[in-house]
Amino acid sequence: MKEIKIFCPATIANLSCGFDVLGVCLDNVGDEMIITRTVEKGVRIKEIIGADLPLEVEKNVAGVAALALIEKLQPDFGFEIVIHKNIKAGSGIGSSAASSAGAVYGVNALCGYPLSNKELIYYAMQGEALASGAPHADNVAPALLGGFAFIHSYEPLNIVHIDSPKELYATVIHPQIELKTKDARSVLKQTVTLKQAIKQCGNLGGLICGLYTSDYDLIGNSLHDEFVEPKRSLLIPNYAELKQAACEHGALGGGISGAGPSVFALSKGKENAERVAEAMRQVVKDAGYEFDIHVSPINSQGIKVL
Amino acid sequence: MKEIKIFCPATIANLSCGFDVLGVCLDNVGDEMIITRTVEKGVRIKEIIGADLPLEVEKNVAGVAALALIEKLQPDFGFEIVIHKNIKAGSGIGSSAASSAGAVYGVNALCGYPLSNKELIYYAMQGEALASGAPHADNVAPALLGGFAFIHSYEPLNIVHIDSPKELYATVIHPQIELKTKDARSVLKQTVTLKQAIKQCGNLGGLICGLYTSDYDLIGNSLHDEFVEPKRSLLIPNYAELKQAACEHGALGGGISGAGPSVFALSKGKENAERVAEAMRQVVKDAGYEFDIHVSPINSQGIKVL
Repeated sequence: MKEIKIFCPATIANLSCGFDVLGVCLDNVGDEMIITRTVEKGVRIKEIIGADLPLEVEKNVAGVAALALIEKLQPDFGFEIVIHKNIKAGSGIGSSAASSAGAVYGVNALCGYPLSNKELIYYAMQGEALASGAPHADNVAPALLGGFAFIHSYEPLNIVHIDSPKELYATVIHPQIELKTKDARSVLKQTVTLKQAIKQCGNLGGLICGLYTSDYDLIGNSLHDEFVEPKRSLLIPNYAELKQAACEHGALGGGISGAGPSVFALSKGKENAERVAEAMRQVVKDAGYEFDIHVSPINSQGIKVL
Repeated sequence: MKEIKIFCPATIANLSCGFDVLGVCLDNVGDEMIITRTVEKGVRIKEIIGADLPLEVEKNVAGVAALALIEKLQPDFGFEIVIHKNIKAGSGIGSSAASSAGAVYGVNALCGYPLSNKELIYYAMQGEALASGAPHADNVAPALLGGFAFIHSYEPLNIVHIDSPKELYATVIHPQIELKTKDARSVLKQTVTLKQAIKQCGNLGGLICGLYTSDYDLIGNSLHDEFVEPKRSLLIPNYAELKQAACEHGALGGGISGAGPSVFALSKGKENAERVAEAMRQVVKDAGYEFDIHVSPINSQGIKVL
């Protein structure tokens, strides 16, 4: 194979009670990447369409992730990358992760798939380290594995793939305000009460049980976050109204996507998810913001070859 | 039916990272109860064999739980209860829960099973409220449902039954020292760091994933408790040695059972569980304590009619 064209999906990390440990993969929101084998060794970012991002390999998340994997695989050829960015940087739905995951997927594919997608997570995380200062896995893992990805531990790196219940849909609204991850982090409290922690454990456990058993009510009743939402949601205009509108129009529940400002809701069935989208759209329209809105099934496989 | 004889199983609550939210049901450790229909309404505790516990209905956990259910069902007859206590009070393996759960099971059975075992949990919890001051469910729920019982929430009461992987065995050692639940509680810190809380979420989620997928390694790697074990284990003599001996002899992991002083280990297969028992036995023998030790499969159904 000389060239591969792939779809690199958007993802929702920090999934409510799954703060820092649970992410999910979207199906119809994502970037496209074309990765081509070159005689010259190393990596070159040839072009980025749709976003103003650095082409220098060491300053680009796709470049850094690809380099980390090349260091491991030592192929006797190189790679040229073209990225069509559809996911806006800073939207909170895994823009950097899509590029990092796509780059390692493409390099691995052109090398003949020596590593599994699970093994690729570590290398994709190196791109995330450049983007956010920490090599977190809760976007790249669902991008590479599809479905839900649960981060059991980082040392050693242990990620569990959980299939999504068939009828689960995500609605994601991206209000186009700027929200720096640094600010989103600085509002977090560094301690929680034991009572809050146990409640979070109850909800996270409930959510995981709900995913394994396709119990949509349990999923909905578990989508409550004690740790982050109470503080971080204050940085997102109309957050409470968005969530309320979603829940009143049939969503199982929802929360902040990643570090925001995108807000997500999960629903049973496409019809509900679209009704929720309409309700969220109305809230943001009334408030006068620009926004993007997506309704997506859960992507069961992650990155797709086009 | 005029009379029912039942086996009321011991249970492990506060299951490591499942502090306050996860319990599991044992198969060959438990009390026996005989509940007989009487013409006279109300409840009478006729005899308790093997333990010095109050016969007054309002002071006995079985009596209180039975009364709560009778209040609901309003049968036009009464009940007489005989309890053969095999589970020592204060051992940390659900002695009061076995009596509470057994009483409501028996009353429900003699009324023609109007309620499901899941519905009985609420009434059994009223017995637990007498025993420990709080109507907790993490012993009575596994006693009534079998397998693992995950407490998603108390308001509303929502309990999820999780089947146990087939080859999972528990080893439980009860060093016969006195450890008051009050003391075991007073050592708990009322706040935890966000980092600890996220780690606990990672382990609890991993444990639940491991149970659903029969991934024994994941179960073992998840049996770490950030919240309670570091403090409470100091009240249990030789705790560190017991846990180390268990893990060195093939246990997947372990922790404190309930509020202690019993210590449990989970293993894959009976042979491992027995090897673990031998290793634990040696630790306690060397230290010179009296002790009971149990090796049990996970009980998949809970209370059994004999």
